[in-house]
This record gives sequence, structure tokens and C-alpha cells, in this order.
Amino acid sequence: MTTFNFGAGPAILPQAVLEQAKAEIFDWQGSAVSLFEIPFGDAAFSDVIETTRKALRSLLKLPDTHHLLFLQGGAYAHFAFVAMNLLKDRKRACYFKTGHWSDRAIAQASKYGEIVVDRIVSDAAYCHITTNETTQGRQFHQFPDPQGLPLVADVTSDFLTRPIDFSLFDLIYASAQKNVAPAGLSLVILHEKLFDRALEITPRVFNYTEQARNKSRLNTPNVMGIYMAGLMAKWVSDQGGLSEMARRSQQKSALLYDVIDNSRFFENCVTMQMRSHVNVCFGLKDDALNDLFLQQAQAAGLLHLKGHAKGAPLRASLYNALPLSGVVALAEFIDRFDARLNKVP
Amino acid sequence: MTTFNFGAGPAILPQAVLEQAKAEIFDWQGSAVSLFEIPFGDAAFSDVIETTRKALRSLLKLPDTHHLLFLQGGAYAHFAFVAMNLLKDRKRACYFKTGHWSDRAIAQASKYGEIVVDRIVSDAAYCHITTNETTQGRQFHQFPDPQGLPLVADVTSDFLTRPIDFSLFDLIYASAQKNVAPAGLSLVILHEKLFDRALEITPRVFNYTEQARNKSRLNTPNVMGIYMAGLMAKWVSDQGGLSEMARRSQQKSALLYDVIDNSRFFENCVTMQMRSHVNVCFGLKDDALNDLFLQQAQAAGLLHLKGHAKGAPLRASLYNALPLSGVVALAEFIDRFDARLNKVP
Repeated sequence: MTTFNFGAGPAILPQAVLEQAKAEIFDWQGSAVSLFEIPFGDAAFSDVIETTRKALRSLLKLPDTHHLLFLQGGAYAHFAFVAMNLLKDRKRACYFKTGHWSDRAIAQASKYGEIVVDRIVSDAAYCHITTNETTQGRQFHQFPDPQGLPLVADVTSDFLTRPIDFSLFDLIYASAQKNVAPAGLSLVILHEKLFDRALEITPRVFNYTEQARNKSRLNTPNVMGIYMAGLMAKWVSDQGGLSEMARRSQQKSALLYDVIDNSRFFENCVTMQMRSHVNVCFGLKDDALNDLFLQQAQAAGLLHLKGHAKGAPLRASLYNALPLSGVVALAEFIDRFDARLNKVP
Repeated sequence: MTTFNFGAGPAILPQAVLEQAKAEIFDWQGSAVSLFEIPFGDAAFSDVIETTRKALRSLLKLPDTHHLLFLQGGAYAHFAFVAMNLLKDRKRACYFKTGHWSDRAIAQASKYGEIVVDRIVSDAAYCHITTNETTQGRQFHQFPDPQGLPLVADVTSDFLTRPIDFSLFDLIYASAQKNVAPAGLSLVILHEKLFDRALEITPRVFNYTEQARNKSRLNTPNVMGIYMAGLMAKWVSDQGGLSEMARRSQQKSALLYDVIDNSRFFENCVTMQMRSHVNVCFGLKDDALNDLFLQQAQAAGLLHLKGHAKGAPLRASLYNALPLSGVVALAEFIDRFDARLNKVP
């Protein structure tokens, strides 16, 4: 049976990327040595980093002003580090509260300054958004105007699913385990105008300015994750780039929203203009039926559709590697489930 | 030509571990799904963590009082986090200054409290040592008496190379990329008596107490690194355990120290009782000859023998996966190099 993985993360990766990784990691460039074993001081080590950096910079059309860092920690760690890196002079920051992950970002940033929620104050150090809320299935399709403040974004769950206009963003960061690489890698893209704004308490390896100046080699980075990110960048590029990823995400999510909206028993509670193209959160109006749906979906090979405890009961995550055929299968399954309920007298 | 990698890190891994990883990672338990793609909420995800935890706890004979955490960041990040996690009530800490890595640990910890160097003060929160200085080739074979303070150790470069007496240590931490797993994973082992001593500014995912209470799943961990650490724990155990690793490390390092001590042209400047069994740092007395040695060694398949910029010019790292035959080859090479110099009129 063909199965499809709709899990929210760590996410599926394209088969072509996995096959290339399997062939290369354990015999690095024909050296009979694995990628894991390349010493930090060896030219091959920095080559891995620079190859990925080049591929991602090209894919993202990154301006020279923006530095791309490969760090560890996960976005949850960077909720704290972003604030540490920017609150040296100005002690306030503005955060848009859109769901579970922005809540967590706010809780961490609050340790280092005063957080103003859902409004802009002119003396803030920056304005923060979560571009896509994985838990609630809400996504910014137009970004709020930061009124001259640096705009900072957690792009974890929609990174590489659409083009990014870097004239709008001064700092973006992401955990890699959705569309970029296996868990254990974080990406930070930083405008150099934000250099040297870190609090003294910032751990040195999480000081973005220092890592930018040291090309992410201040300490030993997760070189395997960086290598995989390079393969993913190339795969996205080969598939047609970020605008093609955006087209596919729209197509896949529209298919699901359409079948949900046209059903009698399913619902999606996200306002139309914020519906995510990446995480479709939905549920059966009769909550007692959600478990039955999950059981039957799993039996049909439609896996990991359970929603987050703080969100809707069901969720379909449609990352770049999920084929359209999986979404078609899920849409048809929802349609049939709805039709069967319609027949219940 | 057989080659041997004497690099200081990321280090070589046993061939058997690499082969098992290649066979398993891309087809996880016959599911046709890769290890990278297992969702965080799936039982298989926590199974990976718990399997490794069990294997490491058993190998280390870890007492129930000590919690094993799988985090990110690298030891350099934990130089800061250790201090953050322990300085809530007492604002001073004692550090033994033994080389490059303890210097870095001191520099990071100094952001969060007063650091007392090379002596014990009774009102300190803890006493910190670097069990093995990779750069200088110095290792504690007997540990200093912390006079009742909690003893904290960076064990990055000699973890799993000898048994650890956990009645002496209250917190140990390590980057994984020497003897445990690929770069991108950090291990922290914490006595529960040190719970709840973190500063308010500690990022939540690096709050050791919170991670202990959440079984290292407060955020998405580096599951591939954790899996590899499990394979390594099993490999070490199959080879005879930590006392066997200690025997091998002693045997390998003794072979090199012996040939260096008996040579006319090479030298090792570490006091006898602190000579590392893991990183043998040495050099030619005539500094002009070190580059020639490196060139000829590389041509002979003896790779990555260049020392750290802040240490001796040459260094042979003898991690668990380096076979005795590699050390024999290097010892013979040093001997021949010395003999040729002896013949120069």
C-alpha cells in the first residue's frame, strides 16, 4: 500500500535527496571516509558549508547585505537568542501573537526585554512575526508593516515553500526539520545592519554577529545537516525554484480546503485570508468522530493526521516533499468519509 | 594505501557502526521511511531516544540520581549554559585552567558570575574541570578534590574512553563528535540535586532541569545523532566496555609517548602525570622540520596530524575507533623519521 506522511515535523524529504545522501554520506567524494569523519580543520569541511551556502543564497536570491548562518538549537532556542541578539540598546520588542509558536517566542523573549503584543511602538528594537503557525494552520500572506522597525520572522514551517522578499525582512530564522534538512540544524539569515546589538549575556556561539564574521565555524556545526540542506536547495531549484514551490503549496492546500468547505461534517475554522498553504488544520464538527477518522485514514495509508494538542483535532502538513497524489488521496478520503456520514439515517 | 585519520574532531567512527547506520537510517525498521522523517509525536521517535538512553546508561553504569540529556549546541555553547544552570543562588564558581578549552569555558562562564581560577572557595556554586585538553594533550588521571562543591566536567574529548565514577561528578557534558556520534549533538549528565538552580535568563530548551523533566523532548532533538550515539554505546559495550576502551587508550598512547621519548629530534612537553591518553601532542625540536614531517606523514597515509594553533605543532588523536595498527604505523613512521635525521652529517 502506498502511504503518505502528513506529519508536522520532522518532515518527509524527497526520495531523490535521500538516495543521494545514502550514496554520498558514507563514502565522501570517493574517499572511503564518511561525511561524519571529516576533521573541522580540513578544507573538505568548509567546502560542505560553502557549497550549501552558495546553493541556498542562490535559491533565495539573498542580497549581499544578508548573512546566512548555520547554527544549532532549533527555533525554540532561537526564540531566546533572537531577543538576546537584538536588545542591547532598545529594551522593547513588538510581537504578533498568532498562535502556539508565537506564544512560545514571546515567553522566551520576555526574559530579555519588554514585549509589546500586537501593536507597534516606535522605540522597539524590532517587530516579530511567525510567518506560519503550524499548530493553528494560520499563515501570513501579506506581512504587517513594521513601521520602520526591523522585521524579524520565525519562518520554520514555511521556509522554502515560497519566495521571500528580503527587502522586507532583516532577520529570519528556522528550524531545518520541515523543508530543509533533518532535525538538529537551525538557519538564521541576518541583515548586517543588525550586527553588534547582542546583550553581554549572549553565549558566544549563539551571537549571530560573531558567527557571521566566522562563517558559522566559531564551533563545530552540524555538518551532516548542512550537507542535507544543500541537497534540498538543489532539489527545490531543479523543481523550478521557490515560485514553483509556492504554486504547488497553493494547489495542494486549495484542494483540501475545497473539499472541507464543501463537506457537511468537516470544518476549518481559520479566517480565509490567513489559511495556511502548508498546514491545513481541520476537524469533524462532531468531535467524537475525529478518532474514527484518524483510524480509518491510517488504515488507508494516510498517516500522521492527528492535530497538535493546542490546535484543531486534525492536521495535514503539506511540505515540499509531499506529492500532489498524496493530497488527492486525502481529499478523496475526506469526501468519501463525508458521503458515508451523509447516508447515516 | 591504508590511511589512518588522527584528526582531533569530528572524529572517525567504527566501520561496523557506519555500515549499520547506512543500512538502517534510510529504511527505518523496514518501514521504507527514513529515520529523518519520523514525526516528533510518533512512538518510534521516542523509541529512538529511549533505546540510546538505555544503552548509554547501562554502558556508563549511571546511577538513578543522574539524568542523561540529549541536547544541541556543542560543548562551547554549554560553557555558557552550565553556568546559567547553576548560578541561581551562589554567584561564584571555581574553574581549573588547564588549556585552551578551559580558557574558553571560563570566558563564557564569566558572563554569568565571578570565576575563581585554580583554587576552591567554599561559597562557590560548583567546581569545573576539563578532563582532557585536546589542544594541549593534557588529561586528568586523578581528579582534584572539589572540597564538597559539586564537581562539573567537560568530558568532550575523553568521554567513553574510560569508566567514569559518578560518585565524584555531579554534572558532566560533552560534544558528541569525538567518540559518540556525528557533530550536532551534546550530552549532559546531571545529578538531580542540581535541579532548579538555573538563572531566569536561561533559554528554556537549555534549562537542564526542564529538559530532564521532559526527557529531552521539550523541543525536537537531533534524533539522527541520538541514534548514532546508541550504535556507538552498543559497539563500545560489544568491544568490552569502558575499561577495555581505557586499556586500549593507554596502550595506544604509551606506544607513541615511548617512541617520542626515545627519539633525539621529537619532544612532548606535557608533564608525565598529565599526559593525555587520547590526544598526543608533540613536535620536532627544530620547528622548521614540522611541515616536512606533516607532508611525509600524509604521503604515507597518516592523516590530519597537524596540531591546534594554540598547542604543539603535531597531534595524534587516538579516539576509540582508531585501530592499534594505525598507532603502530605512526610510531614506526616517527622512528624512521628520527633515524633519517640521525644520519644527516
